[in-house]
Amino acid sequence: MVDIATRVYNHKWKIDPIVRSLIDTDFYKLLMCQSVFRNKRDTQVTFSLINRSKSIRMADLIDEGELREQLDHVRSLSLSRGESTWLRGNTFYGKRQMFRPDFMEWFENLRLPPYHLEKRDGQYELTFEGAWPEVMLWEIPALSILMELRSRAVTGDMGRFELQILYARAMTRVWEKVEQLKPLDGLKIADFGTRRRHSYLWQDWCVQAMGEGLGSKFSGTSNCHIAMKRDLEAVGTNAHELPMVYSALADGDDALARAPYDVLADWQEEHDGNLRIILPDTYGTRGFLDRAPDWLAGWTGIRIDSGDPATGAEVAIDWWTSRGEDPTKKLVIFSDGLDVDKIAALHTQFKGRVRTSFGWGTLLTNDFRGLVNNNALNPFSLVCKAIKADGKPTVKLSDNPNKAMGPSDEIKRYKRVFGVGEQVSEDVVV
Amino acid sequence: MVDIATRVYNHKWKIDPIVRSLIDTDFYKLLMCQSVFRNKRDTQVTFSLINRSKSIRMADLIDEGELREQLDHVRSLSLSRGESTWLRGNTFYGKRQMFRPDFMEWFENLRLPPYHLEKRDGQYELTFEGAWPEVMLWEIPALSILMELRSRAVTGDMGRFELQILYARAMTRVWEKVEQLKPLDGLKIADFGTRRRHSYLWQDWCVQAMGEGLGSKFSGTSNCHIAMKRDLEAVGTNAHELPMVYSALADGDDALARAPYDVLADWQEEHDGNLRIILPDTYGTRGFLDRAPDWLAGWTGIRIDSGDPATGAEVAIDWWTSRGEDPTKKLVIFSDGLDVDKIAALHTQFKGRVRTSFGWGTLLTNDFRGLVNNNALNPFSLVCKAIKADGKPTVKLSDNPNKAMGPSDEIKRYKRVFGVGEQVSEDVVV
Repeated sequence: MVDIATRVYNHKWKIDPIVRSLIDTDFYKLLMCQSVFRNKRDTQVTFSLINRSKSIRMADLIDEGELREQLDHVRSLSLSRGESTWLRGNTFYGKRQMFRPDFMEWFENLRLPPYHLEKRDGQYELTFEGAWPEVMLWEIPALSILMELRSRAVTGDMGRFELQILYARAMTRVWEKVEQLKPLDGLKIADFGTRRRHSYLWQDWCVQAMGEGLGSKFSGTSNCHIAMKRDLEAVGTNAHELPMVYSALADGDDALARAPYDVLADWQEEHDGNLRIILPDTYGTRGFLDRAPDWLAGWTGIRIDSGDPATGAEVAIDWWTSRGEDPTKKLVIFSDGLDVDKIAALHTQFKGRVRTSFGWGTLLTNDFRGLVNNNALNPFSLVCKAIKADGKPTVKLSDNPNKAMGPSDEIKRYKRVFGVGEQVSEDVVV
Repeated sequence: MVDIATRVYNHKWKIDPIVRSLIDTDFYKLLMCQSVFRNKRDTQVTFSLINRSKSIRMADLIDEGELREQLDHVRSLSLSRGESTWLRGNTFYGKRQMFRPDFMEWFENLRLPPYHLEKRDGQYELTFEGAWPEVMLWEIPALSILMELRSRAVTGDMGRFELQILYARAMTRVWEKVEQLKPLDGLKIADFGTRRRHSYLWQDWCVQAMGEGLGSKFSGTSNCHIAMKRDLEAVGTNAHELPMVYSALADGDDALARAPYDVLADWQEEHDGNLRIILPDTYGTRGFLDRAPDWLAGWTGIRIDSGDPATGAEVAIDWWTSRGEDPTKKLVIFSDGLDVDKIAALHTQFKGRVRTSFGWGTLLTNDFRGLVNNNALNPFSLVCKAIKADGKPTVKLSDNPNKAMGPSDEIKRYKRVFGVGEQVSEDVVV
């Protein structure tokens, strides 16, 4: 029997919204948002979309009207009662009431601020200006909208069976990856693939496949909406935007040199245990760790998000050892451009020397490489970054110069202040 | 929204019926049935299930109660009004009213006769005894029930994602085959896969994939129910059971030698054009053609269902040439154990020399080879054959001794009567 009401209802939609919930975002965005809401609520920040893969001409692929409709739809969203209840009542990292009442009240009343959209050189210039805790929440929806509109553009002229086979092949690929991970003893792996996913439904499928195939080796998803819907752990801690904005706000070189530690001092006040994860690469991992105060060595772990991951982990292990910490008690989270072979290699290499876990992103939720003509569904490197804070430009150096950003004179100054010398370039795939 | 009525209705089913329609059968069964109904209505025939793949212990795999339920369900079926209308009103091979009113009236009132089921040596002995036009209609439902119960037995303990990936892989495989066939210029190919299909829904999917991928190169399906549902041509002509029963009924060696031609004389009275297809291999192709009356050389084509297919086609071409016929006007239908490589090779080999078409069976609708542990879903050779007619055993020699059947003394007599000498054995895969 056809459910007539459902069919009529479905056909009433003017668009098929890509982001249908304000918590269809990464958990760490909300954690950081709460921290920013507490510490830097009035800072004016500009976020900007940056397509590192210039050959993908987004503005030629994606209709501007459709993009605006999707972005406008996100601006119409507010936290639902159930979502609010989940955020207020759920246990995150074993802790109840992770989100404080004042933050929740603010969040419940939030609508995302306006966006600014222009076409230039076949790309979209998409920027968000406003109070930091508000504009920062645009990052993930903006990315996932652009990624999914691109998927829709490519799949738009495919027939019903072509589509079925496309997804059959993609599912088979994900499942084969899961089967490759299954035998890795002691593996801990989470989905970090929201921002560059092929689509919402596809991410949701990948997450379920991970859960089904990996059981307790699958430790959760960064996506709050999927975590809620699928009764999984929501995972993640903090990102580069914190040190980047703190550093941009710093007055003079001394303050700049202190800024990355100020971020973590603020963080330490709010969080403990598995939420105390250092992200050391914003201005070079080695210098950051060498100059780090001793209290940081007591933190639970380090997330390695650029540079050669094995080297990064060795640096971390050496650092903990030099500070009298036992590395086997520490956690290294790998989250940069992972795929199964790299995961398996790193897991094996560091087994018994340090605890490891993996935040698997784009190559989990968007691996359609080679599945359509001209590789038109291959993942690519789209980011949305804080580029300005209270009128001053932000800078990121990273452990991979291909991931650096900021004005060149500021990059020079930051390199000097943070003592960053020669760096090894790595290709940025995603 | 959940359609509550549908959900409740679905849960009321005591079984999930495999065969839900009396026309979920091969078109040629109905054509032959009409011919038998006209010419040999009262002949008492026994059909029997034969599993040529003894290593597949059907009775260990399949629950007897479930098998009985499925067979009983088929006995509860009768032709629906829509099915009757379709058979009466549709055009088959360009001809209206293919099925005569007296036959349709009989068919509308038909319920399938009782079956006899026993377990022996890990196999099911399943036999059907009664008037030929009635019992012959058991062949296809009996086979498709046993095949699908076997699929269900194997997939019964698989998880939701394992199943999804199983079908994703199988779909990808079928689609890759379709893509391999697509470039073959002038190809004509039909689905002949009802009897040994993985399941009804799977056959239906494969047929749709063929239609979508091959367009006009896909000439239809032997399955009447799917042809009706998907608005396709129903295709097929005649099978070994006709000469086998006619021969069993023949009184003495002279009558026996004539019997295979009597069958086709009866057939010629009823059919013309593309329905005049000779199936010459029942008692050896070469001898059959050598002794054939000239009127047979005027028929449209030959179906090659055993032996080396290229050799069979060459024999046919030589025969037509020797009888003054132009082979390029004739049709060779290949239908034995086909898969894409063989289809492509035969298509290329005979291009321009004779018209060809392909009846693709088990390796279209049941190619799950290697997709589960222990190859437990690999296709196997299950047949359901007329073994007795009016108390006398039937015999089949075939062009492949591995496909021969009947009591050995009778096989010896048939070989003598039909002048069959040394034969080349070919593996029977399906």
